[in-house]
Amino acid sequence: MSDISLEDIASLAKRRGFIYQGSEIYGGLAGTWDYGPLGTALKRNITNAWWKFFVDSRDDMYGIESAILMNPKVWEASGHVSGFTDPLIEDLKTKKRYRLDHVLEDAGVDVRGMDLAAMSAAIKEQGIKSPDGNELGNPASFNMLFETSMGAVEGEKSTIYLRGETAQGMFVNFKNIVDTFYPDLPFGVAQIGKAFRNEISPRDFVFRVREFEIMEFEYFISPNSWEGEFEKWRVAMHEWCEKILELPADKIHELEVSPEDRAHYSKRTVDFEFDFPFGKKELYGLAYRTDFDLTNHQNASGKNLEYRPKDGSAPFIPHVIEPTFGVDRSLMAVLCTAYTEDEMNGEKRIYLKLPKHLAPIKACVSPLLKNKPELVTKAREVYDMLKKELGAVMWDDNGNIGKRYRRQDEIGTPACIVIDFQTLEDNTVTVRNRDTAEQVRMKIEDLLANV
Amino acid sequence: MSDISLEDIASLAKRRGFIYQGSEIYGGLAGTWDYGPLGTALKRNITNAWWKFFVDSRDDMYGIESAILMNPKVWEASGHVSGFTDPLIEDLKTKKRYRLDHVLEDAGVDVRGMDLAAMSAAIKEQGIKSPDGNELGNPASFNMLFETSMGAVEGEKSTIYLRGETAQGMFVNFKNIVDTFYPDLPFGVAQIGKAFRNEISPRDFVFRVREFEIMEFEYFISPNSWEGEFEKWRVAMHEWCEKILELPADKIHELEVSPEDRAHYSKRTVDFEFDFPFGKKELYGLAYRTDFDLTNHQNASGKNLEYRPKDGSAPFIPHVIEPTFGVDRSLMAVLCTAYTEDEMNGEKRIYLKLPKHLAPIKACVSPLLKNKPELVTKAREVYDMLKKELGAVMWDDNGNIGKRYRRQDEIGTPACIVIDFQTLEDNTVTVRNRDTAEQVRMKIEDLLANV
Repeated sequence: MSDISLEDIASLAKRRGFIYQGSEIYGGLAGTWDYGPLGTALKRNITNAWWKFFVDSRDDMYGIESAILMNPKVWEASGHVSGFTDPLIEDLKTKKRYRLDHVLEDAGVDVRGMDLAAMSAAIKEQGIKSPDGNELGNPASFNMLFETSMGAVEGEKSTIYLRGETAQGMFVNFKNIVDTFYPDLPFGVAQIGKAFRNEISPRDFVFRVREFEIMEFEYFISPNSWEGEFEKWRVAMHEWCEKILELPADKIHELEVSPEDRAHYSKRTVDFEFDFPFGKKELYGLAYRTDFDLTNHQNASGKNLEYRPKDGSAPFIPHVIEPTFGVDRSLMAVLCTAYTEDEMNGEKRIYLKLPKHLAPIKACVSPLLKNKPELVTKAREVYDMLKKELGAVMWDDNGNIGKRYRRQDEIGTPACIVIDFQTLEDNTVTVRNRDTAEQVRMKIEDLLANV
Repeated sequence: MSDISLEDIASLAKRRGFIYQGSEIYGGLAGTWDYGPLGTALKRNITNAWWKFFVDSRDDMYGIESAILMNPKVWEASGHVSGFTDPLIEDLKTKKRYRLDHVLEDAGVDVRGMDLAAMSAAIKEQGIKSPDGNELGNPASFNMLFETSMGAVEGEKSTIYLRGETAQGMFVNFKNIVDTFYPDLPFGVAQIGKAFRNEISPRDFVFRVREFEIMEFEYFISPNSWEGEFEKWRVAMHEWCEKILELPADKIHELEVSPEDRAHYSKRTVDFEFDFPFGKKELYGLAYRTDFDLTNHQNASGKNLEYRPKDGSAPFIPHVIEPTFGVDRSLMAVLCTAYTEDEMNGEKRIYLKLPKHLAPIKACVSPLLKNKPELVTKAREVYDMLKKELGAVMWDDNGNIGKRYRRQDEIGTPACIVIDFQTLEDNTVTVRNRDTAEQVRMKIEDLLANV
């Protein structure tokens, strides 16, 4: 993968309708992206697989969808209003602002364990300049919450925030879930949804963006069981990466986050990093958040958020393990893994080696020649039959067969089915394999079981 | 349905984990709601059914997911910055503000065709007072777009908006779709996503809210075909309501919106109204938007948004038919239709007569007695088998069987399966039907085909 660049991936994603720049005809809007038809299908396949794997197939999960707009007291209690900040530094000449830690990382400095003062000092000591070659100054903390105002009446208007994470939606519904379902501990609350961060400098395609989607649990446990539960989640996250997304195990790295770099409430955090074309970067996170959040919300809301064990033992505030999965980063890791270049018949070929269950299109159906009505009619029959069962089937009768194969290769379609003159005689079709480019003849009635 | 109130529905929805007030432990946030585990499952079943019915099973649909945050020029070009307003009137004493049209409607005035001046005049002429009995004054237009600010640098900071509708995301991606997929006309761009409106007075449960979800197409057509395409969509929308959501046909009413009440760019609009417990209210909309949106975006962006027919005839800007489906309103209509009260064994019973494919839980499995290990073990086997195939299966061993049935009735579970002593002898179980309360014995191996 080392010779594949992020530009290769982004270029294919745009050209083939996976991901477009947000608001593109207006020159874009920094840090926003629009998913095209194939990207939307791939994203839906990933989020539905996650829901099936972690929610529907388990007994201990409660899925919710909480609102993006929440009472501002939520963000005061959670610490986001005061502390949801990134370190920022300014180019003294252009007045452009940058993520201070990124400037240092780009200059080869290991920022782990550094606070704002230490990073600031490193800039001065090492004489690091801005990307435009100018002096840097004025380091500051920048709050990433987007603010807006709700209500029609001046007196009732209030400043509210777009949620900076989905987690708080689960914490504020803890009591609702317990009151409705009386679950035993441990149990989890799951959610897939959008979150928003006013990133200082969005970059790396859909990796660092201002609007993104998260799949996440808050897993409520007894405090004395945290080490075992943490370990189970660590294993489950690897299983998701390797068995469901089929990411190569040797490209996934655990980073044990050091105490200085952990959020102050976390007793243990493991980052799951992935070898992206632009470096080893955070894919997922797994954090033991103790009872920090529920305790804060209990204090701030005045509502009792204790859990009452059914055996009558003393009520307590559960602790929490939080596995977090970025949807956009998952999709990016899948695309980066699938992107393959090889040579075929002396020509460069690009194809996406996507797992079949994630591929946006499962099969493409073509008549060998588009100007032979008997071939077209037969091909339509096959197409309709597959479409009815699989949904994600494409029709393509443009250009010659070789070109059609290349188009399907680029979007990761596992099988290309061609109806030719022999089909009219014996009801067999050719099925061409994306990865090997091999063709086999198969009876139409066997297609569904094999495609 | 006439004797069922919205409060009945909202109360059940909260009690059984369908829908909770947003940020409830902090006293809520007006116009926001959180979907609990059963509401989330029901919502997912509705949106997935929609995607399957209108996108995956058709050849002419391109699904996208555009960003909620868009370049502000989009909303200038679309007319939202200047004209996305509701009429507002103020209680002169309390300074509370109300939707002027709602105040009039609540007083029995038919506001169709009235503009701000006419509504204002009607308030004066008829001496209508505020809900608190005070004088009303100061009518005004109130813009419903939520504003926020993006970017870290003062000079680069810009006012942006939370999207007030999903439609513009489809219009700005028209060119991307055409450039990537070269579709023939007519074709549609489909999207499911959140939109935000700073409603003056949110009300009627999840009917009029500040954050909501929309399922929508922009269907691009040749201008001369609009009447036929409009008619096809009108029929397709009824099919969706009646065949997929299984709403009663006699509760769905078409309202042909009069020219005075239509948006100025629309040549025809049909509202689909539904008999909710609080009255006949808009469920869906179907509008012929002409080439208004693409023309505006072409002018404002400077990008050519014409469609070039493959036969070489002159390029033109396609016209648009827009069918819009509110997700939350769909769910509400489904819940209102399903909510049933009857009497059973002399006691009032509440049950949700949900279509099986929409029910959040397909089956509940119970051992007759929870303290008989052989029954529990056997019941677990049945549960695991069904759970593996269906996902949405619940385990319940609390209380007596009658109570378990009532709990499942209230959440609309079509089948309750009980493992009793006879099961241990002949591998049959009882299956109890939600609607008829009848029980039949069935072999375990036949369950999957019949539940």
